[in-house]
Amino acid sequence: MSDQQLYIQNTLTRKKELFKPLVAGKVGMYVCGPTVYSDVHLGNVRTFLSFDLIYRYLLHLGYKVRYIRNITDVGHLVDDVDEGEDKISKKARLENLEPMEIVQKYTNGFHQVMRLFNMLDPDIEPTATGHIIEQMEMVERILEKGYAYEVNGSVYFDVEKYNESFEYGVLSGRKLDELMSNSRELEGQSDKRNPVDFALWKNAEQGHIMKWDSPWGIGFPGWHLECSVMSTKYLGETFDIHGGGMDLKFPHHECEIAQSTAADGVAPVKYWVHTNMLTVNGRKMSKSEGNGFTPEQLITGDHPLLEQGYSPMTVRFFMLQSHYASTLDFSNQALQAAEKGYQRLMQAFDLIEGLPVSNISDLDFETFKAKCYEVMNDDFNSPKLIAQLFEGAKYIQSVNAGNRKIDKSTKEKLLNLYRTFIFDVLGFVPNLEKGNKLLLEGLLDTIIEIRVQAKNNKDWVTSDAIRNSLNALGIVLKDSKEGTSWDLK
Amino acid sequence: MSDQQLYIQNTLTRKKELFKPLVAGKVGMYVCGPTVYSDVHLGNVRTFLSFDLIYRYLLHLGYKVRYIRNITDVGHLVDDVDEGEDKISKKARLENLEPMEIVQKYTNGFHQVMRLFNMLDPDIEPTATGHIIEQMEMVERILEKGYAYEVNGSVYFDVEKYNESFEYGVLSGRKLDELMSNSRELEGQSDKRNPVDFALWKNAEQGHIMKWDSPWGIGFPGWHLECSVMSTKYLGETFDIHGGGMDLKFPHHECEIAQSTAADGVAPVKYWVHTNMLTVNGRKMSKSEGNGFTPEQLITGDHPLLEQGYSPMTVRFFMLQSHYASTLDFSNQALQAAEKGYQRLMQAFDLIEGLPVSNISDLDFETFKAKCYEVMNDDFNSPKLIAQLFEGAKYIQSVNAGNRKIDKSTKEKLLNLYRTFIFDVLGFVPNLEKGNKLLLEGLLDTIIEIRVQAKNNKDWVTSDAIRNSLNALGIVLKDSKEGTSWDLK
Repeated sequence: MSDQQLYIQNTLTRKKELFKPLVAGKVGMYVCGPTVYSDVHLGNVRTFLSFDLIYRYLLHLGYKVRYIRNITDVGHLVDDVDEGEDKISKKARLENLEPMEIVQKYTNGFHQVMRLFNMLDPDIEPTATGHIIEQMEMVERILEKGYAYEVNGSVYFDVEKYNESFEYGVLSGRKLDELMSNSRELEGQSDKRNPVDFALWKNAEQGHIMKWDSPWGIGFPGWHLECSVMSTKYLGETFDIHGGGMDLKFPHHECEIAQSTAADGVAPVKYWVHTNMLTVNGRKMSKSEGNGFTPEQLITGDHPLLEQGYSPMTVRFFMLQSHYASTLDFSNQALQAAEKGYQRLMQAFDLIEGLPVSNISDLDFETFKAKCYEVMNDDFNSPKLIAQLFEGAKYIQSVNAGNRKIDKSTKEKLLNLYRTFIFDVLGFVPNLEKGNKLLLEGLLDTIIEIRVQAKNNKDWVTSDAIRNSLNALGIVLKDSKEGTSWDLK
Repeated sequence: MSDQQLYIQNTLTRKKELFKPLVAGKVGMYVCGPTVYSDVHLGNVRTFLSFDLIYRYLLHLGYKVRYIRNITDVGHLVDDVDEGEDKISKKARLENLEPMEIVQKYTNGFHQVMRLFNMLDPDIEPTATGHIIEQMEMVERILEKGYAYEVNGSVYFDVEKYNESFEYGVLSGRKLDELMSNSRELEGQSDKRNPVDFALWKNAEQGHIMKWDSPWGIGFPGWHLECSVMSTKYLGETFDIHGGGMDLKFPHHECEIAQSTAADGVAPVKYWVHTNMLTVNGRKMSKSEGNGFTPEQLITGDHPLLEQGYSPMTVRFFMLQSHYASTLDFSNQALQAAEKGYQRLMQAFDLIEGLPVSNISDLDFETFKAKCYEVMNDDFNSPKLIAQLFEGAKYIQSVNAGNRKIDKSTKEKLLNLYRTFIFDVLGFVPNLEKGNKLLLEGLLDTIIEIRVQAKNNKDWVTSDAIRNSLNALGIVLKDSKEGTSWDLK
């Protein structure tokens, strides 16, 4: 275990607090994962990337972390067959819409995106459908304690009753009085005693496909229940860190606190961490605005708003250059700057190993290292860490140019420090494919230059030999007035 | 839909039968997936690869296939804490062994191996823990029909009673009398009325971690139940194809038939397909024999029995060169032959596009094509398909050498046919990384040859310019008596 003092901005207390895990040396962390009924969007990617950074830094500090990120796979799909599910299932089951096919497709897609951006896998990725029994059990506990009521096969959480013993709105800062005066009755919610109440269990209407038998009839769990159930099942009634996008603060996380407190009598989470939004050219990213693109489009550049494609590591760098709790605006300019910045950082890293050594060093390494930890210990401030690594890059370039000095021991320590922060903590990976491409291009430029010289010297034998050799490799040279270009056959 | 007549060796009827799906144009296929409590071994890979071939061919024929492959994640882990689960969970949940962490680790590893060998994802990958309620419901149906009994919180299937109305052993060909006279009572199974009976639901003993509340007390589902439940839930009470390794035929698949028939009164599966074993140098692969290696070891060559590493596509080719129902023996010799064979096939494919065309063709294309389908329609005979593609390869090489002729239209059709069978049906992928490496090596050979010529001509300017250019690209040339070699810096 490292002796670093880590501070986390706790959105529950609205304070930056010294991080003290409930069990020394171990951290339980739960992050709300994707709903797998559509493609993951770039805002989600930012959220998961922020927690990837947090997970990586906690691991680097030597904590044993149990990181849980759920998959919400209980959908509200309705089949359009008249006869209803039961009759149909006897015969042609294959004719039916099968929600789990959709779940599988988008779960696979989500995992692919996570791999693309080099995110570490969570330790457990529990699904809502995998915990229906546990969800029913929590509904029963809340009913027993008197903080829920059953109406027509549905069970609702009684917010007003809860608020008599505990405080509803403690996370979001909302007051129950105001919520009640602002809320209106919506159609289909008339079973509720109070519009602020929320469903723990919903009665399944005709045609609803995903449903299970329960003590209250056939139905499905309410939206907020799964996270309360799965976080406490795997991390305990109270655990260290709960994270998610800030749009989940209310009502989702507020309801999680109420459910757990009602069922078990204790607040579930010690540190709440919320990530901020991603905007595009200053506007909220959304499908209706036409400014939402998928991670794949970002990489291929295949979208009207994108001037070019950006590599996954450029995007990762771009996102980590902003603090997770700040909004981040997405623009071609910003991405292009990130592309250059990322390359500059990696080039500096590549230089370290070959730096000429002296007997003395101009760098106060211990101070430099302490600064790297200091900014990360200040609520995972990755932009400041990157700025610090750029400071170091200037020094590295100076040493490389012969203007400053480094000794052997400092060089080794600096290489290790950069390796640790660039790869382990910030989670970058060298882009091998691009490296190969650059190498290929470099070799071809060399060959073409040799051929130009040969032609200038009227050495047609060499010139033709080069053309033929490349041809055999599947590379065609094209001579024009502008010079020689090449293409793969 | 294609009008091909596909025949499948049905291990239930022991006959090769014309394949007629229950719903025209649609196929429901269920394959027993891995138990995610240890690394997937090479025998599993062969099984899943066999069904990948079957899935691919069905898709190619135009069927809409719903392909289900389950994940068995109900483990029988026992916690070693004295106080038992309930007391512990109140406090330090993070101190406990968490089975779902193990599940996650090996599920991720399994998916990685499937990707390595270019297997298509199944349409649904259901988990046993995700279907506990449905499993309890099936137990209840079997109890209601009188084919099961409850003892001390466990429920057992009554094989003798079942055999009075139906026939137990119909798949494996075993007779109940013989089974009963051969079976002995094992310790801890004394709750059973008859040693041939099997558990549908097991009472959880002290310390058992994965357990759920049920009508019979806290426990967990029996081994055979999940597949009966998940296959019929997603494919219907009767579905087309059920597959698995032949070691699962008895008791697992036999019990599946008994469970479904007892619960719903109908046999669950129309075509049972069983794959054969993988042996190593003629002996069964097993950990205790020390001859079991992981897919990773196979690729890196890091195992005493491996003379070298083999690429995933070489292994794929090797496995598909044997029919799924035959045993396949794994040896370095066989793998090395497969490596050459795969290269030879891909080289022939690469030649097609550049073949010189004539006005006439020596190939009877329609007969050639029909033969490809004929062998695949004969119970997915991939070794015969590969042999047929090698026949074609000989012709392609003759045309390339100018000894035989092809016309433009035949060339196009041949290219399409090879592309379809090599990539879509057999599922090979061009090894891009290797391609890049070959290209690099080719370019460097070209450059080095130019430099040799320059040195022979005493053109030191060119010779040094080449060395410097390569140096700038990170490539070092080393001159010796044997010639010039190169290395990356």
